[in-house]
Amino acid sequence: MGEDFIQTVLFQLFVIIVMVEVARMVCNKAKIPTVIGEILVGIIIANTILFDFLSIESHPDVFHVLKELGVIFLLFTVGLETPFSSIRKVGKTAIFVAVFGVIIPFIVGYIFMMFALGPEKQLEALFVGAAMVATSVGITARVIKDMDLMQTVESRVIIGAAVIDDILGMIVLAVVVGIASGGSLDIIQVAAVSIQAVIFVLAIIFIGSLVLPKMVKNREDKRNREDKKGRVVCTADRRRYTIGPLPLALIVCFALSSISAFLDLAAIIGAFLAGMAFAEFKDKWPCEEKIEPIAEFLTPFFFVFVGIEVSLAAFGEMSVLVLAGMITLLAVITKFGGCGLGAKNLGSKSAAIIGVGMVPRGEVGLIVASIGLTMKDPVTGLGIIEPGLYNAIVFMSLVTTLIAPPLLTYTFRRKLGMKCELVPPNVE
Amino acid sequence: MGEDFIQTVLFQLFVIIVMVEVARMVCNKAKIPTVIGEILVGIIIANTILFDFLSIESHPDVFHVLKELGVIFLLFTVGLETPFSSIRKVGKTAIFVAVFGVIIPFIVGYIFMMFALGPEKQLEALFVGAAMVATSVGITARVIKDMDLMQTVESRVIIGAAVIDDILGMIVLAVVVGIASGGSLDIIQVAAVSIQAVIFVLAIIFIGSLVLPKMVKNREDKRNREDKKGRVVCTADRRRYTIGPLPLALIVCFALSSISAFLDLAAIIGAFLAGMAFAEFKDKWPCEEKIEPIAEFLTPFFFVFVGIEVSLAAFGEMSVLVLAGMITLLAVITKFGGCGLGAKNLGSKSAAIIGVGMVPRGEVGLIVASIGLTMKDPVTGLGIIEPGLYNAIVFMSLVTTLIAPPLLTYTFRRKLGMKCELVPPNVE
Repeated sequence: MGEDFIQTVLFQLFVIIVMVEVARMVCNKAKIPTVIGEILVGIIIANTILFDFLSIESHPDVFHVLKELGVIFLLFTVGLETPFSSIRKVGKTAIFVAVFGVIIPFIVGYIFMMFALGPEKQLEALFVGAAMVATSVGITARVIKDMDLMQTVESRVIIGAAVIDDILGMIVLAVVVGIASGGSLDIIQVAAVSIQAVIFVLAIIFIGSLVLPKMVKNREDKRNREDKKGRVVCTADRRRYTIGPLPLALIVCFALSSISAFLDLAAIIGAFLAGMAFAEFKDKWPCEEKIEPIAEFLTPFFFVFVGIEVSLAAFGEMSVLVLAGMITLLAVITKFGGCGLGAKNLGSKSAAIIGVGMVPRGEVGLIVASIGLTMKDPVTGLGIIEPGLYNAIVFMSLVTTLIAPPLLTYTFRRKLGMKCELVPPNVE
Repeated sequence: MGEDFIQTVLFQLFVIIVMVEVARMVCNKAKIPTVIGEILVGIIIANTILFDFLSIESHPDVFHVLKELGVIFLLFTVGLETPFSSIRKVGKTAIFVAVFGVIIPFIVGYIFMMFALGPEKQLEALFVGAAMVATSVGITARVIKDMDLMQTVESRVIIGAAVIDDILGMIVLAVVVGIASGGSLDIIQVAAVSIQAVIFVLAIIFIGSLVLPKMVKNREDKRNREDKKGRVVCTADRRRYTIGPLPLALIVCFALSSISAFLDLAAIIGAFLAGMAFAEFKDKWPCEEKIEPIAEFLTPFFFVFVGIEVSLAAFGEMSVLVLAGMITLLAVITKFGGCGLGAKNLGSKSAAIIGVGMVPRGEVGLIVASIGLTMKDPVTGLGIIEPGLYNAIVFMSLVTTLIAPPLLTYTFRRKLGMKCELVPPNVE
């Protein structure tokens, strides 16, 4: 009958929405970004009686999809506020930031793990390095959006670098997976992933700057023709059907997300590029006010479920805790240093903002870790990453995610000399 | 890793959204309600290579939830346009429409099946009667919304009657399930379901007319106090946190839907009542423009998945086809006659609109049928409803759903003398 199932899911959604609202209220009182409250809601659910009470694990598919839709719509709205032209202006700096921010964490992470685990654990060390690479732009984008600072140079560099970083991160992951599965470096695979990524981004820029404006113009022409007739009645008889603002935005968003996922890039890269494609002419194509409420509804599920994946019990062992602490420290220092180095031409205060903004690893680190957990070592037949190390990487993803918002707020305020608080999205 | 899963779901969503948009375009050309196009998209997917190509069955939970969220948000927006006061005005007529519209189809359906199947199939006959009872207000509400006719007396009677009808339908279902499982009529169960339903509706009216207006006033007071200070800076320092329009709407909507589902009423009854609670003061509490886009995104999934549940291959057998035809004919005539009889004081043209508006059985008939399919007969140990009869009920649900929109359009036009076409929701 399935009604019990729906009943459970509706109740889960209800409890989560209420908890998120309470958390936002508390965060607002404590003057910390509301996104932290949302992640903490997840951690509270995962590590208390609520987890069983809500039977969170009974329908993993549902929450997996809600989480993914949440981050896709978030990245689409972030893309909407990032016209191509603005990325082009900061393009060179963004490339430097991304490249240094990928190379330094990877090399340092790899070398550290080789020392910590011994030279026979080379595959494990490679995976830790890869997990330290990819920035999760979701958290940073959210903080920047909450502070209403999307228009600053630093924000654009961060977002631009995060896109390039994601592509580089996927190439690193492909290389590492290639070494782990084949036992040696598969040049063809690396080249294929790289070429796909470049073609994809170029194709989107083409669509964004050529095809979409034509569709918009087409629609405007039709409208104007009708207005001249002066017939604004409740009839649609001779009016030709034109696609609405929301359907076109959804189609482009899901098309690019799907393609992105098929190319083994993260789906959110496609969503972000789709948003960017609409950013150039969002005044003429009013999809923003339609997409925003959908994002407002779904995005909290992403952050709550980032929190739900954290098991505090896993940190009972001392060795896990030390390892986790070391990996986290290195992840912060190398990303901050690498990205700051790449952005040093913007001045030290801006470089600090960008360095901090690139720190959160979020779900990307977790994806790398879980691949390492499930892949088998060709020699030993065991998982490449052992559970203790997996917990350490989860810890690193979480801490880098939790420390970034307050540091980002602090560095932005220092640069802009602002007194202003973070305004949560639902306070008008 | 789960990425393949997300990849599949995103691609499924993409294909569905594109097909829906194409179907809307075709419906607009053919001047039929776009909702039919959405159901046909589902039927096409279910009965072609697309079903396997999209691997629709790989994640049933996901689509079950998307479908349910779609109809919940739809009913919320319908509720938003139905203030309590307007229902009160048509209350008496709505009650007559609902009561006659429940009793006549149930008795006629039961008697017909007793003749068709023989007296030893009493349980099966009871289930068919129950499946013929409950109106699916979703389809009708959508057609009325598309025609922008929510403000008419007929629409309010239909919506009001559909709410009462759903409650009565659930009571009938509870009685039938009680007879089937216990072998005899359980008066206590019937009484419990009835009392719960009444208390629930009264509680919502209390919240709608007392608690919510206070919250809204509270928020307005705070706002005014701030405006007087004349400080509209980017700061939130001394501003106290007030809940936003969308979160409150979502909390109330999911709270009532959950309660509704727990009481074994359909979840959509709660969503509808939640919308009604906000309808009285939606000018002061701007949640409509936030909920509408979410409904626009999710609602098509409901109708597409109503279509996907239809298997055309099941109608190869002649006996199934005849049975399906008879049941459908009776379902249409008895509901039209019963509801029309209840509304005869409004005049024949209005009674015809209301009779037609109550015809679609949609998902409610399907739920009853699937309960009958899975419940075991206490004597024979087999399913109470056999697969052939199940297909006939599915057919009945579908046909009553498909014929209602054009008939509703026709009867409304005849009454209002309008020339206006159905304006699909995304044509401005």
